[in-house]
Amino acid sequence: MYSDLPADQLAAYRGSTRAPEDLDRFWADTLDEARQHPLAVEVIPYPSGLRTVELYDVVFPGFGGDPIRAWLRLPARSIRGDAPLSGVVQFVGYGGGRGDAHENLFWASAGFAHLQMDTRGQGAGWSKGATPDAAGSAGPQVPGVMTRGVLDPQTYYYRRLFTDAVRAVEAMRSLSEASAVQVDPARVAVLGQSQGGALALAASALCPDVAAVVAFVPFLSDFPRAVTVTDSYPYREIRDYLAVQRGQVETVMETLAYFDAVNLVPRSTAPALFSVALMDTTTPPSTVYAAYNNYAGPKELTVWPFNGHEAGAIEDDVAALAFLQKQLAG
Amino acid sequence: MYSDLPADQLAAYRGSTRAPEDLDRFWADTLDEARQHPLAVEVIPYPSGLRTVELYDVVFPGFGGDPIRAWLRLPARSIRGDAPLSGVVQFVGYGGGRGDAHENLFWASAGFAHLQMDTRGQGAGWSKGATPDAAGSAGPQVPGVMTRGVLDPQTYYYRRLFTDAVRAVEAMRSLSEASAVQVDPARVAVLGQSQGGALALAASALCPDVAAVVAFVPFLSDFPRAVTVTDSYPYREIRDYLAVQRGQVETVMETLAYFDAVNLVPRSTAPALFSVALMDTTTPPSTVYAAYNNYAGPKELTVWPFNGHEAGAIEDDVAALAFLQKQLAG
Amino acid sequence: MYSDLPADQLAAYRGSTRAPEDLDRFWADTLDEARQHPLAVEVIPYPSGLRTVELYDVVFPGFGGDPIRAWLRLPARSIRGDAPLSGVVQFVGYGGGRGDAHENLFWASAGFAHLQMDTRGQGAGWSKGATPDAAGSAGPQVPGVMTRGVLDPQTYYYRRLFTDAVRAVEAMRSLSEASAVQVDPARVAVLGQSQGGALALAASALCPDVAAVVAFVPFLSDFPRAVTVTDSYPYREIRDYLAVQRGQVETVMETLAYFDAVNLVPRSTAPALFSVALMDTTTPPSTVYAAYNNYAGPKELTVWPFNGHEAGAIEDDVAALAFLQKQLAG
Amino acid sequence: MYSDLPADQLAAYRGSTRAPEDLDRFWADTLDEARQHPLAVEVIPYPSGLRTVELYDVVFPGFGGDPIRAWLRLPARSIRGDAPLSGVVQFVGYGGGRGDAHENLFWASAGFAHLQMDTRGQGAGWSKGATPDAAGSAGPQVPGVMTRGVLDPQTYYYRRLFTDAVRAVEAMRSLSEASAVQVDPARVAVLGQSQGGALALAASALCPDVAAVVAFVPFLSDFPRAVTVTDSYPYREIRDYLAVQRGQVETVMETLAYFDAVNLVPRSTAPALFSVALMDTTTPPSTVYAAYNNYAGPKELTVWPFNGHEAGAIEDDVAALAFLQKQLAG
Amino acid sequence: MYSDLPADQLAAYRGSTRAPEDLDRFWADTLDEARQHPLAVEVIPYPSGLRTVELYDVVFPGFGGDPIRAWLRLPARSIRGDAPLSGVVQFVGYGGGRGDAHENLFWASAGFAHLQMDTRGQGAGWSKGATPDAAGSAGPQVPGVMTRGVLDPQTYYYRRLFTDAVRAVEAMRSLSEASAVQVDPARVAVLGQSQGGALALAASALCPDVAAVVAFVPFLSDFPRAVTVTDSYPYREIRDYLAVQRGQVETVMETLAYFDAVNLVPRSTAPALFSVALMDTTTPPSTVYAAYNNYAGPKELTVWPFNGHEAGAIEDDVAALAFLQKQLAG
Amino acid sequence: MYSDLPADQLAAYRGSTRAPEDLDRFWADTLDEARQHPLAVEVIPYPSGLRTVELYDVVFPGFGGDPIRAWLRLPARSIRGDAPLSGVVQFVGYGGGRGDAHENLFWASAGFAHLQMDTRGQGAGWSKGATPDAAGSAGPQVPGVMTRGVLDPQTYYYRRLFTDAVRAVEAMRSLSEASAVQVDPARVAVLGQSQGGALALAASALCPDVAAVVAFVPFLSDFPRAVTVTDSYPYREIRDYLAVQRGQVETVMETLAYFDAVNLVPRSTAPALFSVALMDTTTPPSTVYAAYNNYAGPKELTVWPFNGHEAGAIEDDVAALAFLQKQLAG
Repeated sequence: MYSDLPADQLAAYRGSTRAPEDLDRFWADTLDEARQHPLAVEVIPYPSGLRTVELYDVVFPGFGGDPIRAWLRLPARSIRGDAPLSGVVQFVGYGGGRGDAHENLFWASAGFAHLQMDTRGQGAGWSKGATPDAAGSAGPQVPGVMTRGVLDPQTYYYRRLFTDAVRAVEAMRSLSEASAVQVDPARVAVLGQSQGGALALAASALCPDVAAVVAFVPFLSDFPRAVTVTDSYPYREIRDYLAVQRGQVETVMETLAYFDAVNLVPRSTAPALFSVALMDTTTPPSTVYAAYNNYAGPKELTVWPFNGHEAGAIEDDVAALAFLQKQLAG
Repeated sequence: MYSDLPADQLAAYRGSTRAPEDLDRFWADTLDEARQHPLAVEVIPYPSGLRTVELYDVVFPGFGGDPIRAWLRLPARSIRGDAPLSGVVQFVGYGGGRGDAHENLFWASAGFAHLQMDTRGQGAGWSKGATPDAAGSAGPQVPGVMTRGVLDPQTYYYRRLFTDAVRAVEAMRSLSEASAVQVDPARVAVLGQSQGGALALAASALCPDVAAVVAFVPFLSDFPRAVTVTDSYPYREIRDYLAVQRGQVETVMETLAYFDAVNLVPRSTAPALFSVALMDTTTPPSTVYAAYNNYAGPKELTVWPFNGHEAGAIEDDVAALAFLQKQLAG
Repeated sequence: MYSDLPADQLAAYRGSTRAPEDLDRFWADTLDEARQHPLAVEVIPYPSGLRTVELYDVVFPGFGGDPIRAWLRLPARSIRGDAPLSGVVQFVGYGGGRGDAHENLFWASAGFAHLQMDTRGQGAGWSKGATPDAAGSAGPQVPGVMTRGVLDPQTYYYRRLFTDAVRAVEAMRSLSEASAVQVDPARVAVLGQSQGGALALAASALCPDVAAVVAFVPFLSDFPRAVTVTDSYPYREIRDYLAVQRGQVETVMETLAYFDAVNLVPRSTAPALFSVALMDTTTPPSTVYAAYNNYAGPKELTVWPFNGHEAGAIEDDVAALAFLQKQLAG
Repeated sequence: MYSDLPADQLAAYRGSTRAPEDLDRFWADTLDEARQHPLAVEVIPYPSGLRTVELYDVVFPGFGGDPIRAWLRLPARSIRGDAPLSGVVQFVGYGGGRGDAHENLFWASAGFAHLQMDTRGQGAGWSKGATPDAAGSAGPQVPGVMTRGVLDPQTYYYRRLFTDAVRAVEAMRSLSEASAVQVDPARVAVLGQSQGGALALAASALCPDVAAVVAFVPFLSDFPRAVTVTDSYPYREIRDYLAVQRGQVETVMETLAYFDAVNLVPRSTAPALFSVALMDTTTPPSTVYAAYNNYAGPKELTVWPFNGHEAGAIEDDVAALAFLQKQLAG
Repeated sequence: MYSDLPADQLAAYRGSTRAPEDLDRFWADTLDEARQHPLAVEVIPYPSGLRTVELYDVVFPGFGGDPIRAWLRLPARSIRGDAPLSGVVQFVGYGGGRGDAHENLFWASAGFAHLQMDTRGQGAGWSKGATPDAAGSAGPQVPGVMTRGVLDPQTYYYRRLFTDAVRAVEAMRSLSEASAVQVDPARVAVLGQSQGGALALAASALCPDVAAVVAFVPFLSDFPRAVTVTDSYPYREIRDYLAVQRGQVETVMETLAYFDAVNLVPRSTAPALFSVALMDTTTPPSTVYAAYNNYAGPKELTVWPFNGHEAGAIEDDVAALAFLQKQLAG
Repeated sequence: MYSDLPADQLAAYRGSTRAPEDLDRFWADTLDEARQHPLAVEVIPYPSGLRTVELYDVVFPGFGGDPIRAWLRLPARSIRGDAPLSGVVQFVGYGGGRGDAHENLFWASAGFAHLQMDTRGQGAGWSKGATPDAAGSAGPQVPGVMTRGVLDPQTYYYRRLFTDAVRAVEAMRSLSEASAVQVDPARVAVLGQSQGGALALAASALCPDVAAVVAFVPFLSDFPRAVTVTDSYPYREIRDYLAVQRGQVETVMETLAYFDAVNLVPRSTAPALFSVALMDTTTPPSTVYAAYNNYAGPKELTVWPFNGHEAGAIEDDVAALAFLQKQLAG
């Protein structure tokens, strides 16, 4: 059923948060700090038994230089040839990790170099991960990562994860023959669903020269509304926290504003494909529209009227394939 | 949590059903009848935008000659070369259909000809299908297909679906260059999870010369116990039916015996890989052990102690890949 | 709690669907086709042990001439005498069948000839049936009948069931002494709750000369709104289907328009009694008001402010008795 | 699913309670006290619009002489004639009352005088009642009546209700032409489901000369086991109470022993029909078997293997009709 | 999530009930009647093992002179000295009783004489009680006390409980050295949460000279709206009752108007502290605002934006301590 | 209901884990390392408005010297006098922190120095905390702390928390007049419920000279059984993790063995009071009995037959008060 705004209000909705004055500086400083750590990318062949796709186990330095894992999947040499490939950097939904190497062969089968980034400290909820979040909690929290370090933007979990995402893009662009494949740095897209969509949007704002962006039902958008229009996790973690840490409402909201897609995407310029599902209670449609309506680049939106958070699933992927083939045409 | 038999009893459990005396004749007659319809297989290229895998939309005649849809996925020509391929015929879980063409690229990426059969009259519950079940209900039923036509083995839904599965194997074996690829009929395996696993077991019993069988947490096994040890659907459909159609208990149980994996797999001889999940309430472990312990061919069993019905997921697939590469080595 | 429109908007709400241009022709053709099958009604005495009521097992030809079962209940001969009786044709709610012969003695006890029609292919969910839906599925579907054949009005399940309902009225009218009782064809009413109410409304639109109509919380009304304002089954089946068969939204909505009470009842002229329950999430009040407000005959509406889908239950029946005694006074 | 004892243990199970030494005296004193109030039965015709059945609104003095309501339903005079009728006294399930006059026409339609007793202080949970429980709570309690006055058998709610049940039998037997119908006191049966079945058993123990007893899935049996093998209400009320009133376990159990069917039915001698449902979590099968196995009269048991607490529903009724027609044959 | 009115409408909302014309007389007569029973207060030392606080088991005459239990907790003699103390009379939430003597040491530790009143006939749902509701049910009811005697204000449960609350205040004021402590009658406050808050508001209206009032998320306010905007118990009890006792809607609403905080608090004059929780579905925020906005004395409101019915919990208590220390400053 | 072992098997059950060979060394090394950080305890008066109890905000060095917060509550000076006090160190249940200063006045009111330790990195789930878990995750994890660092005993979360608990005891013992109160180091007890009970047991094993131990329904006991006999959180976190990290079963079990109460309490010698609740699904009774039966000191067990995880609540506290007054008698 529909429980969010009516269709006409959705189409016009722009969100309820405001960007902190020092937002750009915050992220510039954060990324500068991360870039102190040299971008050394390990790319190790992973024996798979597959014949059309090659798999590689990748490690690159993320926030604080922490080693971040990823899978790199490539079309077989006989198919990809020698020219530099277009690249897709994919981010993962809440609770999951980069998964198993053998999963998700779609993008490599379509001819892309495909880097699927692990999610620090998650990766046991529904798909496997291998990357710790070494930084600790910096304060009490509820289970999950939504309130880890939330009393200060400097210590908030997503400061580390967004930085990892930017560094993943940079790692992808740095791949050359030495790393089994050469990627054309001008043809790297970012893509993800839910938390993965939020990371794609964040990466598009923080690396505005990515070639294209795909964000399916993106999470982490319009926090002030999100936490009052749904009872579903993971937004619910914030409510649970504030129901106990009653005095921290303002502080928490100030922190979240640094990570809210609504505040970041006015910095994005790459062509973008979004999707929204009208029966989605995990990322309620108004919160997705808020991100979409503030997105500053060229954009398209797929609306799924009868879906929940699964949105278009494979149909979203197939649409993204057509979109990226067009945007990344060499 | 564990709610089925303790481990030692599971290992020895052989089920609570008995094969009808005319079981072999029932199936021989059924298949004879289906084979009256010539095995004309349509194989139509499906434009996909993929580069390492080719997709084909397939129609073959199933029970009653009804047109059954399937996807055929092949490694790209440059990779598969000209020699006949090993084949994997995959069946799908309850409620789903053959899905979207772009899904499930695993087996073709591993070098197999991969035929994923649609499930008549299902295909809207979680993955898409395109095949009707033209035969109608033959009696009152509860929602779903578990009780469709259940008052007589001749009219029972699974008589039609099991026959489709056998015909899918035969269709796969019949593929030759005329149909884009040549498959080695001696190297065709059957595979599936849950209902798909039941179909794989049924196919192994009814085409005992399949090269190998993979059945993850197979469904439709040891009905008399299954309907009393779990409240989960779809076994629950049978309870719901009998809770209203109170006088039909014996008749229903007589019908189900013709379709019970426990009764069929003593006819199977191909090497088989099973999996079982100890916290599975959809196909409770004892019902899977009952199928496994009665299986007459060489066999292996993977036990997942902390999983529910998802069982090993991709880890089951990767194990199946190793298993099939060994069994189907050309 | 109340989750639909506020009271004043409910009172004025007229629905969100539009009648197909060929609606009348569609139904005229459908009924013509059914009437090709001669109206042979079997009426077989059913031994009951009851003394004030007589029970008969009835079969009449429905859609496609399919044999449709029903119970006929009559006041005992010593009470009904020889004059023709008024008749009540009752239809049943979703999932149920005609039930057991000994149930539902109310209308015969009140002096009516009472024909309770079975529901093809249902009849195992909460009350017993005995009538198959021989026509098969014509496409993939979710469990239940809401999406059986839904891609085309010609194959949709409710085309068959609505036709059965019309033929049940005709069967009732045809009863003469040869069939144990004589019914006055001019004094036959239709009645039902939920799906049964939808069938009563459909019958009133397709046989506009029925003497009276009783529709408690009628189902199958204002589909476009119904599928977005409730998560409850059976309307939910349509959402589940469209969540997987994403590309079929328009086609499905076009089919449903032929069966939507909102589109049919402008053809109805008989006096009608409706009920609506303001806390009903199965047939949300706005969808019932939509049917009521479009109903073209004289009409009354009972509003139950604190009930869910059970609505007035026996109190609805007692009100219907007074209503029908007035409308059918010989 | 099955969660109680295996079938062979069920068949032999006799319960875990023990009768208090003064059980007979307790009930003799209780009934003596009630009988101080003269048995004045009011029988007021209730206008119904029905033709085959007559309805009467009845009041008789129950425990403490409190006015207890009931419906009396009779076959129409032209059918019942002048001879005394057999009678059925029916008791109602937990939470309900005597319902509406127009409901439940089965027993009168079958030719019996049918008295349906109201349930003091209940009658708003699922069927309507009109009788207060004037006696108050005598202590703290959880919602419901299971713990009302439970700290002393003298103040326990069911002391009053069991007494009402006995007085209902006596009221039925006292009906003579002056009260519209004459009932043969030697042909009065008691009948009920769940709480109604418990009352029927209690009446059979306390009026051992009732002609027959029908107890479908009887409640209030083997309390010590019941409260530990199910989490379902209403047995759960006792757990809820003892979870807060932790010190009262022994006292509560001592009270309950006076009302436990297991302790009462060794006093019963009338022929009895029981039913039990193997998937019933409201009155778990072992607790029903405990009552059945201790029942001292001739007895039959219907076992419903796939039902919950609804048990055989109308099929139980039809079986009861055959049973009572045999037992009460005039 | 938020499901009640938007913030600006909440702030202005004044409710949907209207005071009965004889409201003042009804309560004046009720209290006069209760005061016929002399205010004899028993205060019995309760051995506790505590050193800083003294505990007493108290009995005072409530409605009808019924003996009502309470705990009196005092700071140890060495701390409280000889001067009369300020007093806090606390009422308890739905289903609970006065609890255990050793619980809730907060108010005595803060230097107050603290009387925690038991709740007649409740006291087994989540905290222990010891006081019966001797008056009985006066009609059918659903489990709980919300519909006990609800067909007449004279017999309604809350007539008795509100009277107990007034008498508790009077009992507190009457404490003198003879009862272990002397309380200053001019410095007695009332306090409670949920049902306890409703009782505090009722006491403030019926004893307008209490020194201060604390009502956290008060219950029993704006019944006509409350029963339609939430499905949560205990308001839900009223819906459940009216869903079966369909004809009693008007009568029930007339009764409830005598007990509705919205109608009572225009009589209150003492300074008051309220709290409201914006995600509370037990006492929806609009119903709390309705009480607050009609409250006639000086008032403050704490708003908890992310809490449910627990509201501020200990933070509400600490705020109440500051509030009462200010209001009751000797 | 009861779902664990029958009573006689519970009484004898000793668990299913085995102590690692280097268990003593592991803990000796861990504590040595912690003790490298000098035990500097900050004790800061906390203004409370209370009169009988004094509150202090405490910080002491825990694992890694991390600053751990606690509340110290003392009876008012006029009551406690000058003699050293007995002390109670209390640990908190899963998800909670030390709470608010004004909560939990019971132990200080009873005359004890009462130190309530905060729980690092928790403290937002149901009661407030203020202490981070600075150490980070060391690997992927599911939400919560049960799997944080679980692949190695060195990095496991509970290594840090158990160490904090030991240091809390040492901090308590170090209190002298300089810190507002003098505590007799020989009369310090440890106490807690659930996770708090596990910490009390761990402290008793690692500081065997604590004067007494109170463990209500202790958690973290007999992991191998616990994770298979309940689906309730927080044990469920481990299942969730192993359902995704399927290859880690053995490694995880090896880690957990270092923290399992069953393996630790054979080192305990202090007199202990346990409680167990027979309907507890959070800490199933068999797991509590396993800890109890292996406990090496004098011991008592309170059994609550009708409680879940709340167990005896205040009644457990009152029993603990009597127990500790006896054990710690100066």
